[in-house]
Amino acid sequence: MIKIIKNGNVITMDEERKRIEKLDIVIKDDTIVEVTEKYDGSYDEIIDATGKIVMPGLINAHTHLGMSYFRATNDNLTLQKWLNDMIWPLEDKLDDEDNYYGTLLSIIEMIKTGTTCANDMYFNCAGALKALNETKFRCMFTRTLMDSDQKGHEKIDEFIKLYEENKYNKLLSFAVAPHALYTCNHEYLTECSELATNLNLPVHFHYCENKAEIEGTLEQYNKSPLSVLIDTGLINNKLILAHATFIDDDSLEYFKGKDVSFVHNPVSNLNLGCGIADIVKYKKYVNVALGTDGQGSGNNLNMFYHMSFVDLLQKGKYEDPTVFSSYDVLKMATINGAKALGLEREIGSIKSGKKADIIMLDMNDSLTSPGTDVITNVVHNAYNNVDMTMINGEILMKDKKLCLDINEEKLINKIKEVIYSLS
Amino acid sequence: MIKIIKNGNVITMDEERKRIEKLDIVIKDDTIVEVTEKYDGSYDEIIDATGKIVMPGLINAHTHLGMSYFRATNDNLTLQKWLNDMIWPLEDKLDDEDNYYGTLLSIIEMIKTGTTCANDMYFNCAGALKALNETKFRCMFTRTLMDSDQKGHEKIDEFIKLYEENKYNKLLSFAVAPHALYTCNHEYLTECSELATNLNLPVHFHYCENKAEIEGTLEQYNKSPLSVLIDTGLINNKLILAHATFIDDDSLEYFKGKDVSFVHNPVSNLNLGCGIADIVKYKKYVNVALGTDGQGSGNNLNMFYHMSFVDLLQKGKYEDPTVFSSYDVLKMATINGAKALGLEREIGSIKSGKKADIIMLDMNDSLTSPGTDVITNVVHNAYNNVDMTMINGEILMKDKKLCLDINEEKLINKIKEVIYSLS
Repeated sequence: MIKIIKNGNVITMDEERKRIEKLDIVIKDDTIVEVTEKYDGSYDEIIDATGKIVMPGLINAHTHLGMSYFRATNDNLTLQKWLNDMIWPLEDKLDDEDNYYGTLLSIIEMIKTGTTCANDMYFNCAGALKALNETKFRCMFTRTLMDSDQKGHEKIDEFIKLYEENKYNKLLSFAVAPHALYTCNHEYLTECSELATNLNLPVHFHYCENKAEIEGTLEQYNKSPLSVLIDTGLINNKLILAHATFIDDDSLEYFKGKDVSFVHNPVSNLNLGCGIADIVKYKKYVNVALGTDGQGSGNNLNMFYHMSFVDLLQKGKYEDPTVFSSYDVLKMATINGAKALGLEREIGSIKSGKKADIIMLDMNDSLTSPGTDVITNVVHNAYNNVDMTMINGEILMKDKKLCLDINEEKLINKIKEVIYSLS
Repeated sequence: MIKIIKNGNVITMDEERKRIEKLDIVIKDDTIVEVTEKYDGSYDEIIDATGKIVMPGLINAHTHLGMSYFRATNDNLTLQKWLNDMIWPLEDKLDDEDNYYGTLLSIIEMIKTGTTCANDMYFNCAGALKALNETKFRCMFTRTLMDSDQKGHEKIDEFIKLYEENKYNKLLSFAVAPHALYTCNHEYLTECSELATNLNLPVHFHYCENKAEIEGTLEQYNKSPLSVLIDTGLINNKLILAHATFIDDDSLEYFKGKDVSFVHNPVSNLNLGCGIADIVKYKKYVNVALGTDGQGSGNNLNMFYHMSFVDLLQKGKYEDPTVFSSYDVLKMATINGAKALGLEREIGSIKSGKKADIIMLDMNDSLTSPGTDVITNVVHNAYNNVDMTMINGEILMKDKKLCLDINEEKLINKIKEVIYSLS
């Protein structure tokens, strides 16, 4: 099965090319087999991209897909209050079926807004897996591990079973995900580290999200967050550190050259009053990707909305518009996300040999024209312009219409029924 | 002609009511005549708002409508470089006809995203007026006054003529608009001040946008920005101060109790590296409204996009999520905007006696559901959900379709033709 995406203005995110080129993309089954100025060969299906933008699908490198129930519900709570008083008591009442619906809603949101891969960290995994499999969405998947309820080992066993049963699913990859320093202890983190080493998986971890967490770590562990990473052996794994809102210079020096990625979650960090991470500095030391966090603190999973915050915050923080560019943001949301997940050979750019995770944008409307600076316009104005989303060579949305057998109205009603019955 | 908006979830922004109520709104010609739990009287037209959000139209308290040509074109330039090297040379080549098309595009963008009144500051006014009159859009209008080209008096004469010819237009109000401290001088600002006093009009002024401007003022005038306001007499007028990114405590104390409003432009301030204004503090002293600035530095005129930055930035700046609420943001974008423009008796809330500037939002989709916290969801997620826009009792968009005789495709092509011919 050969599909071609013809005559688009392509932002490949391939460093060997210009930033925007008029190109044809040839896809055989799930794989990009040719990226060329003009393709004249045969094909089974053609997507006319004339006048449109074509780019790699976006990679949401840190989220909690089941949290659609809590969309935009944190107006005035700190991280600790929000988790303890609002989120965790509600989450305790959710089951696998609820999480199926919650995850399904999040997947629809992502497909409609051009995200083609997410790094999920949640629980009630059977429900989430059902939604992922039904929609053929690409995901780095896990089961959140925490020992604050003394049931940490059950969670580890649950994760191992989940991994063994699904490790050959071609759209899934896996990470070991201890929740955070404040919900685990030294021994438990050491076990997580050994598990990740044994299974050769990355570790996905909330790390230094706000100052209170850092102070709490000093009290609980009697050492710095970095020392915990070192002493538990976590540092020897591939690390995906979500948030990393406050990382000191010594830690940055230590991380340099190691397989450590930070996932910046700007909206969530602002919303919970955590602060503004210093991405300008961070990216000199480590790979930095972009995440939305869950909808509770991140408002939504629309990566275009979140992208717009990234460079603007750095320009404002530094009072200098030259410190960060729109193209830097686009890298975070694509190829850097792939690197963070260890999937840079498969996704993150449009390049022969990579999987066909591709989106198309129609920016010929009154809200985004004229758009003479294409990259800046895409990063800041394309929050409603994705009209085609393809994952692994399959078209999941075309002409802004979902190509999935889902009754959205029914799903939304179900979501509302669940959340209103809980609160 | 009686129109009713029936059974909506209404955010009236009327302090005497609850924040959200199920209400019917009765409109006679251009005016809201009743806001009631249940209206059983007669009507000519009904708008069914069942399951939808109804709220006052948003007020963009500082913008440059003709700048749609430069949408999202400033990725890496400071304010001074951007104006001197990019914007002003291009603007010099624009004429009245160009500005007609540019303003028309901006008006369409605003209608589609729920803005019903703008405070515009630009030039080539005949073109803008044509677009405003054709679309019946509400606007505080002006002609930018600056003397940096020694032609300041021609501009003042042009403004006076414009004002005299259009002062009875019921959809227009006027401000005297000296551009900024760095494009005027002491004598010219004094003349502007006297003009505003004589005509009893507010003064719309760029004020303390970045630190370089403040330093420049000290050099040019040998006094502080506040002293210039005082010594030129400007302080005796109703003042609409755009940006006010850096205002010291002494100035705030001085402004307290005076008829001074600040217009916060968060996206533009970030984009140009100006910084993050301290709105938490400002609003204890003066009325603070919200503006988008032009699309060049503000990316777009979608007030929902800009609203989302306001509370998030303050929460991040203070590292405290309790300092600012979504409802505070909504006030800035509605009733505070009306107060800034001196139109609070006419617009800014849904209340009997006010003009019918009303929008309706459909938030029953996968991207904004479930939305249990309605206000927070509206402020942060409704950037694509306006489905009806009414100005002065006239419906300008319904079911997301413009009710104006404009060929958008032709307009967009014209805009592109103009900007590509200039650059």
